[in-house]
Amino acid sequence: MEVIRIPRIMQDTSRGHLLHSRTLGFVPTMGALHEGHMSLMRMSKEENSVTAASIFVNPTQFGPSEDFASYPRKMEADIAKLREADIDILFLPDVSLMYPEGFATLVEVTGLSEKMCGHFRPGHFRGVTTVVAKLLTIVRPSRAYFGQKDFQQTVVIKRMAKDLNLDTEIVVCPTIREYDGLAMSSRNTYLSGEQRAAATVLYRSLCRASDAIKAGTRSGAAVRDMLQQDLSREPLITGIDYASVFIPETLDEADEITGEVVLAIAARMGSTRLIDNMLVVPSFSH
Amino acid sequence: MEVIRIPRIMQDTSRGHLLHSRTLGFVPTMGALHEGHMSLMRMSKEENSVTAASIFVNPTQFGPSEDFASYPRKMEADIAKLREADIDILFLPDVSLMYPEGFATLVEVTGLSEKMCGHFRPGHFRGVTTVVAKLLTIVRPSRAYFGQKDFQQTVVIKRMAKDLNLDTEIVVCPTIREYDGLAMSSRNTYLSGEQRAAATVLYRSLCRASDAIKAGTRSGAAVRDMLQQDLSREPLITGIDYASVFIPETLDEADEITGEVVLAIAARMGSTRLIDNMLVVPSFSH
Repeated sequence: MEVIRIPRIMQDTSRGHLLHSRTLGFVPTMGALHEGHMSLMRMSKEENSVTAASIFVNPTQFGPSEDFASYPRKMEADIAKLREADIDILFLPDVSLMYPEGFATLVEVTGLSEKMCGHFRPGHFRGVTTVVAKLLTIVRPSRAYFGQKDFQQTVVIKRMAKDLNLDTEIVVCPTIREYDGLAMSSRNTYLSGEQRAAATVLYRSLCRASDAIKAGTRSGAAVRDMLQQDLSREPLITGIDYASVFIPETLDEADEITGEVVLAIAARMGSTRLIDNMLVVPSFSH
Repeated sequence: MEVIRIPRIMQDTSRGHLLHSRTLGFVPTMGALHEGHMSLMRMSKEENSVTAASIFVNPTQFGPSEDFASYPRKMEADIAKLREADIDILFLPDVSLMYPEGFATLVEVTGLSEKMCGHFRPGHFRGVTTVVAKLLTIVRPSRAYFGQKDFQQTVVIKRMAKDLNLDTEIVVCPTIREYDGLAMSSRNTYLSGEQRAAATVLYRSLCRASDAIKAGTRSGAAVRDMLQQDLSREPLITGIDYASVFIPETLDEADEITGEVVLAIAARMGSTRLIDNMLVVPSFSH
């Protein structure tokens, strides 16, 4: 595995592959790699001749009161996993090379960035779209892989890549879950044993709401109430940022369920913020 | 000359040249081509194996009370000039292909965009950096050419290209002037005969201030007063947005002249807004 720390060298390496007509798959991460990340790596390896991963804990997508300092960093274990997965290139830039002195440019997707998590994490998606725009112009992949667990992120990044004519296909892969349904996340390591057990309430309530939609529920308010009641019954949930049903393209809440929707939750367990979501296609046969 | 109207086709064409290791020079314009534009075309042809020009009157860089609707459009004459100059590719996208329905992404250079013209044209540079980011990811040139006449624009675009790791060298070429010193601009066609004659006051006052600096003047305020007095004496100048001496890197006004500075003016003649500038390196030998 080639480890590249300098953006310019990554760009030249990528150009070299392009000149040889090789397809390049790219999996951008913030490290603390889990099975969710590794599923993206495997997908990239299947679909491309070369796969690059990046590890960069991007400071600009964390709010001032968020967990940038404590975000899990496990570089040695991460590198071992990437080697084990036979990844070709690890791009590992330093913050000072991504944001050198005088850096002043922001890439922002208006509208979509302010919905859902945007209300609770102002500036978060601007940080995400700025760093992903940079990563995509540095790595210039044919395809870039993101997990559906961060549903809003995938919608915002697809919009950004399209709007800025970035020549990269954004591929969204299914959420990978623990044996009991908890969506894998680097932040799960923040949870105590008790919290970890209780955290399955997100998945369980998504499943129940999905079943209700499939059984014929069409009222967005009814689905929202169901999700919020389920979450409220779990005493270790200390706050609900949102728990509702949204239209996947616009990220607006769905009043009436008339096509594919996304059930999505952001909830707090003490200082840990958990998110999860589920796409549901209602059946209209009955 | 190949005329390309579809961004995706432009991108594929450009990739084809890259695959053949050809350098691509790019001159983005809003049309109404004059000798200033043509000097950029010649420079590009000298330095690159292939030259592409674009004509796109970008709506998002015009304010609501500005001259988007009346901006001069001279497509036939422009195409004749580009053919005459032996330009290889003309990229001529439609607004609906550059900003399709649902377009939501903004590229903004904070700080630099708010100085100088930014005070008087809010949102202007955000429109410029967004469209130039798009054009550079569509055309993917080795080098892109801009005129020094739009000095702040060149500083903002250089910052954006660097910050977003766009693999394009931004080349700034000297301002081309009419026989009497007036900087060439597509907007000069708005001027009446009388205004056109009086418009040389911009160049004349820049020259006088430059001479003063070269003769030893070191006070920014003194230079600013000199520029403003010269302009005020011309009755056809109906407003001065700014006329002062700035630090080229930061675009802040220079209190004390201690190195290279840029003299810059934005002034109004009726409904026409004229800009001009001059880089000055003070001599410290005396």
